[in-house]
Amino acid sequence: MIGACTDLDDAGYWSIECWGGATYDSCIRFLNEDPWERLRTFKRLMPKTPLQMLLRGQNLLGYRHYQDEVVERFCYKSAENGIDVFRIFDALNDQRNIETSVRAVKKVGGHAQGTICYTVSPIHTTKLFVDQARRLQDIGVDSLCIKDMAALIKPQAAFDLVKGIKEACGNDLRVHLHVHATTGVTLVSLMKAVEAGVDCVDTAISSMSLGPGHNPTESFIEMLEGTGYTTRVDLEKVMRVKSHFMEMLARYSEFLSKVTGVETKIFKSQIPGGMLSNMESQLKQQGAGDRINDVLDEIPLVRKDTGYVPLVTPSSQIVGTQAVLNVLMGRYKVLTGEFADLMLGYYGAVPGEKNTDVVKMAHEHAKKEPITCRPADLLKPEWDKLRREALALKGCNGTDEDVLTYAMFPQVAPKFFLERHEGPRNLGRNPATGESETKPVEGHQGAITGPITYSVTLSGRQHKVIVTPYQ
Amino acid sequence: MIGACTDLDDAGYWSIECWGGATYDSCIRFLNEDPWERLRTFKRLMPKTPLQMLLRGQNLLGYRHYQDEVVERFCYKSAENGIDVFRIFDALNDQRNIETSVRAVKKVGGHAQGTICYTVSPIHTTKLFVDQARRLQDIGVDSLCIKDMAALIKPQAAFDLVKGIKEACGNDLRVHLHVHATTGVTLVSLMKAVEAGVDCVDTAISSMSLGPGHNPTESFIEMLEGTGYTTRVDLEKVMRVKSHFMEMLARYSEFLSKVTGVETKIFKSQIPGGMLSNMESQLKQQGAGDRINDVLDEIPLVRKDTGYVPLVTPSSQIVGTQAVLNVLMGRYKVLTGEFADLMLGYYGAVPGEKNTDVVKMAHEHAKKEPITCRPADLLKPEWDKLRREALALKGCNGTDEDVLTYAMFPQVAPKFFLERHEGPRNLGRNPATGESETKPVEGHQGAITGPITYSVTLSGRQHKVIVTPYQ
Repeated sequence: MIGACTDLDDAGYWSIECWGGATYDSCIRFLNEDPWERLRTFKRLMPKTPLQMLLRGQNLLGYRHYQDEVVERFCYKSAENGIDVFRIFDALNDQRNIETSVRAVKKVGGHAQGTICYTVSPIHTTKLFVDQARRLQDIGVDSLCIKDMAALIKPQAAFDLVKGIKEACGNDLRVHLHVHATTGVTLVSLMKAVEAGVDCVDTAISSMSLGPGHNPTESFIEMLEGTGYTTRVDLEKVMRVKSHFMEMLARYSEFLSKVTGVETKIFKSQIPGGMLSNMESQLKQQGAGDRINDVLDEIPLVRKDTGYVPLVTPSSQIVGTQAVLNVLMGRYKVLTGEFADLMLGYYGAVPGEKNTDVVKMAHEHAKKEPITCRPADLLKPEWDKLRREALALKGCNGTDEDVLTYAMFPQVAPKFFLERHEGPRNLGRNPATGESETKPVEGHQGAITGPITYSVTLSGRQHKVIVTPYQ
Repeated sequence: MIGACTDLDDAGYWSIECWGGATYDSCIRFLNEDPWERLRTFKRLMPKTPLQMLLRGQNLLGYRHYQDEVVERFCYKSAENGIDVFRIFDALNDQRNIETSVRAVKKVGGHAQGTICYTVSPIHTTKLFVDQARRLQDIGVDSLCIKDMAALIKPQAAFDLVKGIKEACGNDLRVHLHVHATTGVTLVSLMKAVEAGVDCVDTAISSMSLGPGHNPTESFIEMLEGTGYTTRVDLEKVMRVKSHFMEMLARYSEFLSKVTGVETKIFKSQIPGGMLSNMESQLKQQGAGDRINDVLDEIPLVRKDTGYVPLVTPSSQIVGTQAVLNVLMGRYKVLTGEFADLMLGYYGAVPGEKNTDVVKMAHEHAKKEPITCRPADLLKPEWDKLRREALALKGCNGTDEDVLTYAMFPQVAPKFFLERHEGPRNLGRNPATGESETKPVEGHQGAITGPITYSVTLSGRQHKVIVTPYQ
């Protein structure tokens, strides 16, 4: 990414989202790269443009709720290392789960963007989202983001929602729209959002766009010609960024999404693509690959019982897994601990009414009382314990940054701390030879008992690959 | 395609474009399939929905002007064999080149759709296109089509153009919009065209959409929700068509476009992707692959000298080749015969003013007088001669359809007539084995000197493939 930074910084973006989300996890799990060092590098190379991160509120970048001190320290450290704009969301749209991070970000002078996870259900009217926007405004966010992670927002809905929020919250509160491209309609939704007064939209450079990603930046800019709307982005610099990533992509072809077209089925099923493939593999492991349609029918029912939670990490996994269990074992005969927690309020408040019979089952199953308070209020101070545990790990450098890495990824951090001194791993492959760029695999010769390099023509394209005799 | 026909016919489309354009050429050149037989099959399987073809006016489906009798006979035969809607265009937007076919289509009771080739240039204002629409209305077309073959039409331009035509030609004259998806902005343009009152738009089933193709049908339909606009198309049937082609595609992967993203460079260069790759290979053949940027700079100048012709077959090839020659040999030191003909009026009238100096050079080069009449007026009757020549070919069945095949493709027809009795060739390959579906390759066993079956894990997915030792 380094080669694109100057052009990116000069291009005139409102902000560059370059950290948080799943990038932190990828850094330590796959790349042997310190995510904090990465952030400092970005800040050094892109000093002019605000850097942005995606933050899961009280979950930070992990998968459980953290006690407030941990959340605060994470926000302070992120700002200190270079993050300017914090886009903060909660999977259930429960603003109590983002309040602590909003407060911490503001205390340290950052921009706290409150996020509405967009979803479609019988209760998710424009009014419901607008009410959420008002609540976010009340807790003092600097701007709002509508986050449509499943590409469900259609043009008219985008227009109505942006208009509704602007009318309710006043024109001064910035509204951003984040959409994915999966269903093929969302560039049109961006156009309609622009007409409704949206202040900023998310796009990706065209060479890294579309499919499960975002809409192409260049197309968005070109689209506006003659409409009276414009961006501050310099198209020439953007085109250079495009070419840069186009070249780089060839080295990472094995990691690219195979999905390049559109998929509109999700409008009916409301199940994101990633969730679908997850459930398919769960079913296959149980020898029940043929029950996928039963599961697809079950999901809306389970989701209804939860009070129509948005389907996004972690609620999508929780609802999907429970639907699989319902189909295989009988409806709610077996509950996962996570599903019970969701029904009992341990992830926060849900948007609608929960099915009280299912709440009762969860209560019996989990032997835990239902709660209505903010889940993190039940947590005891944990920073000192996390710090002790982290510092006991070989290779831990004793910084708060390392403690946070351990706090969020306790399974992955120990190996990362141990191997960090070896430096980042280059997972790219030479596109001409297919060979790894850091550790070239040695060519094998002689008897065909082990792996051997062959020229393989597959679907008309020639690949050089390493293969093992078929048994 | 046969397996999709019932659903396509039941889906409720205004028309199905399924013939003409390059399909006729592909049938006889690659598939050993009689295009007229294909048309009759479509008509039998899709009796309810009007069938549509793309017709290059006086060029028919070939690459030269034909005398009127040939054009008339082609239109009669096409209607007789099943075409209902004739979308008729001329590369220069010279309506005199489409008048004969419009008249012939109307005489035989078909729907004659007059086409405006959309392009961008300093002279191509909305007014210029609207004037052309009026001229097409004057010659009696049943509807109009705006044909944006290079995906250049931006949302506001689409809105203004549809609005302008509707105002000038009256609301009763249907206006269709045909756009490609290449630049990524045209689904938004379709939305704006809908708002401006367009009657019909072209889309493709999602599994065959995007890249250099069209926008996905399903996304278009879903996009309209809540806008007050709707289609008559049944989404459930469309989804079945999608699945059908998704399955079929795997058998033809070697023929699929490698372009799946968007490309906005064309907005600046105005050079369609196909034309660009064409010129690159011309330059490479001349050992001048590094001069591509000079050629890209030269094209707008050459196009200006021609009076800003739209860049579409055959004008795109003519302008592109001349630009290559100008760069390699010096500006207009060498002229192609086709370029001279274009400058002298032998393709018809151009939209703007030609450079008179270049016209003079063309005159000297080609030793032909400039003309201003309709080019086909200079042609002598040719049907009887074409018929005699066709009937002399072995395998010609003596029908007018065969004479037309010979007339349009004199180089390809003789071989096709000879081999037609062998029946259509299936170019599909079994996606699991990569083997041709008509002539299965026999499996090899024994010494590892030839191909052998291996289990290959490529990008994390296991394939069973046949490979050959690497030299």
